[in-house]
Amino acid sequence: MPDKKMKAVAKTRRAAGAELIEADLPVIGPNQVLVKVRATAICGSDAHVYAWNAFAQEVYKKIPNIMGHELSGEVVEVGSAVDWLSPGDHVSAETHINCGHCATCRQGQIHLCANMKILGFQTSGCFADYVALPQSVVWKNDPALPPAVAAVQEPMGNAVYCTLVEPVTARTVVVIGDGPIGLMAAAVAKGAGASRVIVVGLDPFRMEIARRIGPDFLIDASREDVVGRVMELTEGVGADVVLEMAGAQAAVDNGIAVVRKGGRYSAFGLHNAPVTIDYNEIIHKGIVIHAIHGRLMFDTWVKVRNLLDSGLVDIKPVITHHLPLTDFEQAFDLVLSRPTRAAKVILYPDPALIPAG
Amino acid sequence: MPDKKMKAVAKTRRAAGAELIEADLPVIGPNQVLVKVRATAICGSDAHVYAWNAFAQEVYKKIPNIMGHELSGEVVEVGSAVDWLSPGDHVSAETHINCGHCATCRQGQIHLCANMKILGFQTSGCFADYVALPQSVVWKNDPALPPAVAAVQEPMGNAVYCTLVEPVTARTVVVIGDGPIGLMAAAVAKGAGASRVIVVGLDPFRMEIARRIGPDFLIDASREDVVGRVMELTEGVGADVVLEMAGAQAAVDNGIAVVRKGGRYSAFGLHNAPVTIDYNEIIHKGIVIHAIHGRLMFDTWVKVRNLLDSGLVDIKPVITHHLPLTDFEQAFDLVLSRPTRAAKVILYPDPALIPAG
Amino acid sequence: MPDKKMKAVAKTRRAAGAELIEADLPVIGPNQVLVKVRATAICGSDAHVYAWNAFAQEVYKKIPNIMGHELSGEVVEVGSAVDWLSPGDHVSAETHINCGHCATCRQGQIHLCANMKILGFQTSGCFADYVALPQSVVWKNDPALPPAVAAVQEPMGNAVYCTLVEPVTARTVVVIGDGPIGLMAAAVAKGAGASRVIVVGLDPFRMEIARRIGPDFLIDASREDVVGRVMELTEGVGADVVLEMAGAQAAVDNGIAVVRKGGRYSAFGLHNAPVTIDYNEIIHKGIVIHAIHGRLMFDTWVKVRNLLDSGLVDIKPVITHHLPLTDFEQAFDLVLSRPTRAAKVILYPDPALIPAG
Amino acid sequence: MPDKKMKAVAKTRRAAGAELIEADLPVIGPNQVLVKVRATAICGSDAHVYAWNAFAQEVYKKIPNIMGHELSGEVVEVGSAVDWLSPGDHVSAETHINCGHCATCRQGQIHLCANMKILGFQTSGCFADYVALPQSVVWKNDPALPPAVAAVQEPMGNAVYCTLVEPVTARTVVVIGDGPIGLMAAAVAKGAGASRVIVVGLDPFRMEIARRIGPDFLIDASREDVVGRVMELTEGVGADVVLEMAGAQAAVDNGIAVVRKGGRYSAFGLHNAPVTIDYNEIIHKGIVIHAIHGRLMFDTWVKVRNLLDSGLVDIKPVITHHLPLTDFEQAFDLVLSRPTRAAKVILYPDPALIPAG
Repeated sequence: MPDKKMKAVAKTRRAAGAELIEADLPVIGPNQVLVKVRATAICGSDAHVYAWNAFAQEVYKKIPNIMGHELSGEVVEVGSAVDWLSPGDHVSAETHINCGHCATCRQGQIHLCANMKILGFQTSGCFADYVALPQSVVWKNDPALPPAVAAVQEPMGNAVYCTLVEPVTARTVVVIGDGPIGLMAAAVAKGAGASRVIVVGLDPFRMEIARRIGPDFLIDASREDVVGRVMELTEGVGADVVLEMAGAQAAVDNGIAVVRKGGRYSAFGLHNAPVTIDYNEIIHKGIVIHAIHGRLMFDTWVKVRNLLDSGLVDIKPVITHHLPLTDFEQAFDLVLSRPTRAAKVILYPDPALIPAG
Repeated sequence: MPDKKMKAVAKTRRAAGAELIEADLPVIGPNQVLVKVRATAICGSDAHVYAWNAFAQEVYKKIPNIMGHELSGEVVEVGSAVDWLSPGDHVSAETHINCGHCATCRQGQIHLCANMKILGFQTSGCFADYVALPQSVVWKNDPALPPAVAAVQEPMGNAVYCTLVEPVTARTVVVIGDGPIGLMAAAVAKGAGASRVIVVGLDPFRMEIARRIGPDFLIDASREDVVGRVMELTEGVGADVVLEMAGAQAAVDNGIAVVRKGGRYSAFGLHNAPVTIDYNEIIHKGIVIHAIHGRLMFDTWVKVRNLLDSGLVDIKPVITHHLPLTDFEQAFDLVLSRPTRAAKVILYPDPALIPAG
Repeated sequence: MPDKKMKAVAKTRRAAGAELIEADLPVIGPNQVLVKVRATAICGSDAHVYAWNAFAQEVYKKIPNIMGHELSGEVVEVGSAVDWLSPGDHVSAETHINCGHCATCRQGQIHLCANMKILGFQTSGCFADYVALPQSVVWKNDPALPPAVAAVQEPMGNAVYCTLVEPVTARTVVVIGDGPIGLMAAAVAKGAGASRVIVVGLDPFRMEIARRIGPDFLIDASREDVVGRVMELTEGVGADVVLEMAGAQAAVDNGIAVVRKGGRYSAFGLHNAPVTIDYNEIIHKGIVIHAIHGRLMFDTWVKVRNLLDSGLVDIKPVITHHLPLTDFEQAFDLVLSRPTRAAKVILYPDPALIPAG
Repeated sequence: MPDKKMKAVAKTRRAAGAELIEADLPVIGPNQVLVKVRATAICGSDAHVYAWNAFAQEVYKKIPNIMGHELSGEVVEVGSAVDWLSPGDHVSAETHINCGHCATCRQGQIHLCANMKILGFQTSGCFADYVALPQSVVWKNDPALPPAVAAVQEPMGNAVYCTLVEPVTARTVVVIGDGPIGLMAAAVAKGAGASRVIVVGLDPFRMEIARRIGPDFLIDASREDVVGRVMELTEGVGADVVLEMAGAQAAVDNGIAVVRKGGRYSAFGLHNAPVTIDYNEIIHKGIVIHAIHGRLMFDTWVKVRNLLDSGLVDIKPVITHHLPLTDFEQAFDLVLSRPTRAAKVILYPDPALIPAG
C-alpha cells in the first residue's frame, strides 16, 4: 500500500509556470486503478498550459490541478469493480476519458465523446508519483517495453491514426511538420510500406532527428520550394497522401497544393489563427480530408503496440531528454525553446529509473 | 444518314452571349458515335460561359465552340470500333472525357483524370441537332425515360455522388443550398432512407420547389438562425451529414458549425472568393470532408438509373422549363435571373419533342 | 423500491420445457441497473433452449437460470457507479455483454468479444418481473415507443446490421429466408432505398407477412425456380446484395448462384449441418462475404432507433402475438409450430400492458 | 516494321502438350498495339492447359491458339486510335480484357467484367515473338525493370490485390500456400508492414524460397499442427488476416480455424472439388471473406510498380528459371513436376535476353 502523500507538478495559478507540490495520494473508486508512475512525457498542450498562452487560458479551467497525461507505470491497487487488472501490471493510459453514452460514443467513435474529459485537464494528471485512472482508459503494456517508449505511445497513437486512417502502403506520403508527432508519423509511414516518404520541416534540430528516421526525401521549407520539389519528385502528379502536422497557414497551402487529384489529406495541426483553404481547389481535385483528433480507442493502440513490438517503427530518435520530475522547469524550458533543442522530454518521478547514457 | 448541316448554339466571341449558328454535321472517328439530340439542359457552368464572367474567361478557351454537355438523344451512327451501340439506341453522356492512362485514371478515379476534357468546353457540345460522342462516355437509357429527365441525369449524378459518397440511411442529412443540384440531393437523401433531411435555402422560388421535394425540415436562411435551428432539431448533437452545395462563405461556416463530431461533410459548391475554414474546429470534431467533383464513372450513373427507375427519386419538380433550342436567349435569361425564376431549363432542338402542358 | 420476490420463467432442468418460478429480486452491483420488464420477446435461440435440442445442449450450461434477452422496461434502481441513468428511464438492452479488454474489444469490434456473456444464457435473463443489467448494455428508449416494438429492437438490430453492413441504396437486394429477422431485413432494405427488394420464402404464414412488408418481388421457394427467377428479374446480371437468412444448404446455394459478380453476400443463417460452398464460384465472381454476428454496439442501435422514429421501417407486421408471461408455454408452442403460426411473440410480466385488439 | 512470320507456342490439339508453330505476325486494329515480347512467364493456368486436365478442357475452347498471357515487351507499332503509346515503349499487359459497358464494368469493377476475354485464352497470346494487345490493357514499364520481373507483375498483382484488399499494416497475416503467388503475397505482406507474417507451406523446394523471402514464421504443414501453431503464436487470438492461396480443403479448414473473431479471410486458391466451409463458425466469428479474382485495373498495377520501384518487395527469389521460348516443353515439365523444382519460369523468344548466371 503506497504512502499517504506524494509529490506532483501542479498548475496552481492562472499564470505562467507550475509548482512542485505535496499532494494526497489519490483514493480510487470501484472503476479505477491506482498507478505508480514510472515515466511521463510532456505534450505540446502541457507546454501551452505551462506557458499560459491564450489556448491554455481557454481550455484549462480546473486549477489547482496536477498536470500531465502521457505515462507508463505500474498498477498498485485496483477498484472493486475491476476484474482484469492486478497490482504489478505495467500500463499506460489513453488520455481521453469518454462517457460511453453520448451520440458519438454510441456510434463507436468514442474518441470523439461529446462529454470528453482529458486526463490532467479535467481530472488530476500523471506528473506525480501516483495517478488514479478509470479502468476504461487503461492499456496493458509488455513489461519489457522501456518506460519512456511506453509513455509516448499516446502521442505515437496520434501519428499512427493520422497516418493510417487510410492505407499508405505503396503510396507516396508527404509529412508536413517536424514536431514530435510529425516525426513519428514519418516513421510510421516508412514502417507501413509507403513507397516514398517525404518530410517537410523547418527546424534544424528536428530536421536532424528526421534524418535519423530515414524518410526517402527531406525538404527544408526554410530554403526550398516545397511545392515545386514535391511536384518534381512525383513527376507532376502530386502526393497520394499529405499529412498536415505543422499548424501553419503555409503548411495548409503547401499541403493542398501538393496532394494529387483524388488524394487524401489528413488535418492534424492546430492553428493559432483562422485558416484559409482553397475550397475550389479541393473540389477540383476531389480529395478527401480526414480531420484527426486523438486516436481510435483502442484500435490505434493495438497498432502502436504491434508496430513497436515488431520493430517496424523505432521512435527512440524522437525521445531526446530524460529528466527527474523535479526538474520540470528545465524540461519545460527545453520544450518551449525556439529554435528547438528537444523533441519528446521524459520525466521520471523516481530518478532511479532514468536510463543510463 | 443525317443532313450535312445542323443548327447549334455556339460561343463565338469572348463576350457575353452566344449565337445560333449553322454548323457542319460532326464526322465521327472509329471510337465515336453520332447522336441526334432530343433534349439538352443548361448547367450553371453554361450560364457562366454565356454571361462571360471571370470563371468563364478562365476556363473557356476554345472559341468558337458549340456549347452544352447535358443531353439525351438517339444514336444515328456508330464508329468502326464501337461494338455495343447501334443506331436507335437512346443515350445520355458523361461530361468528363477521361484519358484512361494518367495517374488518377490508373487508380480507378477516372472522373478525376489529369487530362480531362469536358464536353462542350474542350470539345464540341450538344446545344445542337447532333453531337459526336466518344463511346467511352456514352450511357444507354431506357427508351421509356422522358428526354428531359434523361438529360438531367448528369447533374443528378452530382447530387447522387455528393450525397451517397458515404451512406446516409438512418442518418440526419443537412443540405445547404437550393440550387438544382442541392434540390436533387435532398430528393436523393430522402430516397436513400435518411432519417431526417433538412434543407437550408434562401430563394423563394427554389424553396417552393424544395417544399415539393418534401424534406423533413426546411430552413429559410434569410430569416432563420440556421445553426441554432439545426442544433435544436438534432438535440444539440449536430447533423451526421452536411452537404455544402451553396458556394458561399456563410454556407461553409454553417456547415462546419452544424456537422456533428465524427460526422461527414461534402464540399460541392464552387466559391467566388477564398474560403476561410475553422480548421481547429474540424480537428476538434474529427470530421471527414469529401470534396466532390463530378460523378463516379459509371457507378454513380448506375445509381441514378436505379433511383429513377424504382421511383425512389423524382426529379421532375426541379425541371421548371421546356423551350425550343432556338429560344436559348430566353432560357439563359431564366437561369441567370435573380431572384430566380427557374431551376433546370431544358432545350429541345426539335420543338415537337417538347412535352405538352 | 420493488418487492423482494418476483415471478420468472426459468430453465430448471436439462430437458424440454421451462418453469414458472418465484425468484429473488436481483441485487445490483455498482455498474448495474435494475429494470422492471414491460415487454420481452422470444428469440429463436430461446425456442431452441426450450425445446432442448442439440444446439441448446451445447450452449446452455447455466441451469437453473432465468431465460430471455429481448426486452423493454423501466429503470427502477441504479448502481452507485451509474451516472447517466435514473429511475423512470425507459430502456432496452443489448444482449451481448462484452469484456472491454480482449483483442477484439480492443479493436473496436466489441460485439465479437472473446469473453462474451449473453444475457439470459450466461447471466440471469429477462423473462421475469425484473432484470439486473450492466450499464454497459443499457439502451435508452423514447418513452413513446410501444413496449413490444422496443423489445424487438435487438433482433431488428440483427436485420439492420446484416442489411446495412454495406450500403444498399439504389441496389438490388435479395433476402433469402422468411424468419422474423429476414422479414425485418426486407423492411430495412426497402427503408434504406434499395431499388429492388426480392424476398425468397417458403412458409405460407410468413409469406403473408412478407407481403404486408411490401418487397418489390416475392418468390415462393416451394414452387418457383429461385435462381431462374432472380436472374430473370436482374436481366441475367444477378443481385447486388444477397442476405442469406434461412440457415439451409439450398439457401446458400441459391444465394451464391444469384449474387452478381463483385456483389455482396451476408451470411446470417445458422445451419444444422456442414455447409458446402462453391468456392471456385465465389472466387470467379469476386464477391465479398460478410458473416454477421450480433449488431454493432451501438451504432446499429442508433440506426434502429432512427429507422423506427422516422417511420422508414415499420416492424409491427412481424409482431404477431402478445401474451402474458405466465402463458409462456402457449407462446413457445406458437414459436415452435410448423408450419408456422407466429413470427415475433411478445410476453408481458404485467398483463395490463398488453395492447388492446 | 517486323517480319511477316513469327514463332509461337500454340495449343493445337485437344490433348496434352503444345506445339512450336510458325504464325503470321498479328495485324493490329485502331485500338491495338503490336508488342515484341521480351519475356513471358508460365502461369499455373497455362500449365493446366498444357497438361489438358479437366479444368483446361472446360475453359480452353479456342483451338488452335497461341498460349501465354504474362509478358513484358516493347511496342513496335501503334493503332490509329492510340495516342499515348509509341514504338520503343516498354510495356506489360493486364490479362483481363474487359468490355467496358456490362453491369460490373459500369460499377467500376472492370476486373470482373461479365464479357471478359483472357489474353491467350479467348485471344491470341504472348508465347510468341510478337503479340497484339488492346490499348486498354497495356501497362507502361520503367525501361530499367528487368524483363523477367516486368513479366511477372501480373501474378504479383494477384498477390498484391489479395493481400492489400484491406490494410495489413500492424496486423498478423497468415499466408496458407507456397505456390508462386502465395510466396509473393508473403513478400507483399512484409513490405506492407504486417507486424507478423506466418507462411504455411508443404513443399520443400518452395519452403526454401519462402525462407529467403523472410516471413517471421514458417510452418511446415506436412509435419506441424498448423492451427495449434498459429494459435500459439497469436496467444490464442488467431490471425487478423488469413490469405488462403493453396486450393485444398485443409487450407480452408485451417484458414477458417485460425482467423480471429472479426478478422479478414481472402479466398484465392481455386479448388478441384466442392469445398465445405464451417458456416456457423464464420458467423460466430463475424469475419469478412474477400474472394479474390484478378487484380484491380489498374490500381493494383500502380501498387505493384511502387512496391517494386521502392525495393519494398523483391520477387526475384520466386523467379527460378530462365529458358528460351523454344524450350517450352522443358519449362512446362519444370512447372508440372511434383515435388516441385520450380516457382516462376520465364521464357524468352529472343534467347539473347536471358540474364547471365
